[in-house]
Amino acid sequence: MSQAPRANAVVGQSGGPTGVINASLVGVVEEACKHAEFENLYGAVHAVEGIVNEEFVDLARLSRATLASLASSPSAALGSSRDKPDRAYCENIFKVFQKRNVRYFFYIGGNDSANTAHIINEMAAEVGYDLRTFHVPKTIDNDLLVTDHCPGYGTAALFVANALMGDDLDNRSLPGIKIDVIMGRDAGFLTAAAALGRQRADDGPHLIYVPERPVTTEKFVSDVEAVYRRLGRCVVAVSEGIKDGDGVIWAKRLAENPEVDAHGNVQLSGTGTLADFLSGQIREKLGVKRVRADTFGYLQRSFAGLQSHTDAAEARACGRWAVTYALEHSSGSVAMKRVGAGRDYAVDYFRTDLSQVAEKTKSLPDEFINDRGNDVTEAFMAYALPLTGGLAKTAHLSGNGRV
Amino acid sequence: MSQAPRANAVVGQSGGPTGVINASLVGVVEEACKHAEFENLYGAVHAVEGIVNEEFVDLARLSRATLASLASSPSAALGSSRDKPDRAYCENIFKVFQKRNVRYFFYIGGNDSANTAHIINEMAAEVGYDLRTFHVPKTIDNDLLVTDHCPGYGTAALFVANALMGDDLDNRSLPGIKIDVIMGRDAGFLTAAAALGRQRADDGPHLIYVPERPVTTEKFVSDVEAVYRRLGRCVVAVSEGIKDGDGVIWAKRLAENPEVDAHGNVQLSGTGTLADFLSGQIREKLGVKRVRADTFGYLQRSFAGLQSHTDAAEARACGRWAVTYALEHSSGSVAMKRVGAGRDYAVDYFRTDLSQVAEKTKSLPDEFINDRGNDVTEAFMAYALPLTGGLAKTAHLSGNGRV
Repeated sequence: MSQAPRANAVVGQSGGPTGVINASLVGVVEEACKHAEFENLYGAVHAVEGIVNEEFVDLARLSRATLASLASSPSAALGSSRDKPDRAYCENIFKVFQKRNVRYFFYIGGNDSANTAHIINEMAAEVGYDLRTFHVPKTIDNDLLVTDHCPGYGTAALFVANALMGDDLDNRSLPGIKIDVIMGRDAGFLTAAAALGRQRADDGPHLIYVPERPVTTEKFVSDVEAVYRRLGRCVVAVSEGIKDGDGVIWAKRLAENPEVDAHGNVQLSGTGTLADFLSGQIREKLGVKRVRADTFGYLQRSFAGLQSHTDAAEARACGRWAVTYALEHSSGSVAMKRVGAGRDYAVDYFRTDLSQVAEKTKSLPDEFINDRGNDVTEAFMAYALPLTGGLAKTAHLSGNGRV
Repeated sequence: MSQAPRANAVVGQSGGPTGVINASLVGVVEEACKHAEFENLYGAVHAVEGIVNEEFVDLARLSRATLASLASSPSAALGSSRDKPDRAYCENIFKVFQKRNVRYFFYIGGNDSANTAHIINEMAAEVGYDLRTFHVPKTIDNDLLVTDHCPGYGTAALFVANALMGDDLDNRSLPGIKIDVIMGRDAGFLTAAAALGRQRADDGPHLIYVPERPVTTEKFVSDVEAVYRRLGRCVVAVSEGIKDGDGVIWAKRLAENPEVDAHGNVQLSGTGTLADFLSGQIREKLGVKRVRADTFGYLQRSFAGLQSHTDAAEARACGRWAVTYALEHSSGSVAMKRVGAGRDYAVDYFRTDLSQVAEKTKSLPDEFINDRGNDVTEAFMAYALPLTGGLAKTAHLSGNGRV
């Protein structure tokens, strides 16, 4: 590898926002500002769209105060994009890089973003242009390969765990059946996080359904019935991407069925259709009156004022490591390896090839799902709990000794 | 007023849970434990249901550690109830009080709970039984009379403000139209809190609709269109109780219309119907593709890990004052008076008559709603901001100077 050139750098944020994607941006900025190799630090406005339109902000000029609020602000401060660049789009990006002497490209995003970085990097290699492209992992879905877990997941998991802790106490207080629909179309990591706040043997969620385990309406209803008969209440966490016995996503089937979907406007997130369908099934088949369903929606990826300290610190470190690696290597993605468990939880950072991360996804492993396919295992709890940065202890009294 | 007797006390929590109703319970317990007048401190399990069934827990035995987790735990730790006791029900409560030598009754709840306390208190007075009944205010709706504001509101407002801060940053990042449906069937205080996190001139929510100002579908759509044409995006906060031009609650009309409600199972909270209807209207009439709607549901009243410090401290103080007043008076409700604004915000506590609070409700005052009926005023911001305990400063970069 040749000496790292003195040249310009572009940083972008892509895909769905998270609670710590700005912490990664701050990590890139603070590390890059330490090295003379970086001439200008361009922030791409709305990711690849900003690159091809040459809409950049000067990141080196940000004050310490701005960086501090930025590190704790949710959502993508540079603006994001849902564009998935093909080769022609990437050529336009590459032209801008050549024109502006951009030799460093930092792209914070998920597996699609890693793929964009990968295509552009190969393009540069083909013509012998020294471009150093680094992907910084980000996703609340936690579905990237190689890395132990993804920045963004811990904070979203903290939100979901706190939501279920509160919702379960609410359900104790006014008993009934409560269903919560949680993000994660293909991977069940975030829905599984609903279990993390459980502190007592009868704490909810009592049932957890992830996309990795299809479930029929009949099984769903009979599972809920069994818990309700036993405890007089039931809290259920359901992924927006749960599949029925035929492997079809329930929400998609609902969207295709005009009898169920009268609005004709259904997508997986940002709609209450699945939640309303599930509560309707329970009400109809079990005859229980007090059934409620909430869809957590965008709150779980962009809630202000709630970050996992662990997640925020790791996201920021991933940004810093991307810069460090870029001075040593031509390309790659930053990954984390867990080097301790429980109270000794810690991670090491390492570089992996873009091709290992691009376009690939990971599912919730079998050992994290119970045999009945309706809950998580202790192995999942041990894996995910440290990522939340810790959860408060709650109290309730109604089950205490009577006088 | 006679000397306060040495006798037993009953404490109950009623109605919808809040984030600080347990802080009020802790306030009652810690103050009562200081006074020899209180023999036993019975916690009524599931409020009035627990009283008539004589299901009590011993609150005087709680450890300091339990009280500490209790004070920060959302939801009603004793269990709540939706029962609205009539005179016959109250007679059964009163019989239990007589049987167990209960001479102090502390009831934490909203205006219905104040009414229950009022009925029982009058019953005791009629037969000359020395019962000291104190209502401790609690509601996320903030709709009780006399008191400046209600414990529970500040924490729910903090949740809603943080949710909108994050959601608005999310909407900047991936522009489109976003609608958030917020609790508060009759009073718009909680929906109005959506505005509290705004920090920049173009921050959302850009439109706020409260039950106090009916709005037609046409006006709603044209308001959204105007913002969308101007900013390229729009964030809207809508009360679950908004009314149409005829003064009918939209959600109720949707529930009555089988073409709109295919599930046949609609209530105001715990359903996404109103949100889905509103986004459907926007999509259909404006032809905008990226329209999303979330219903915050129970999260806003029971989220763990997020309390307004101001609200929690006031809720606890209200519990303590109820005990203090009970030693001096026969009955009443604890109320707060604001004695400073802005950084000098502070409250004084005082006793008011149960009859002043029972069964009555307050609406969002006219001076808190703008002339066009689609936003709040600066007067509202000054009123509500201190109650949240303060909000974090956020940052975004996409609107900064281009390079």
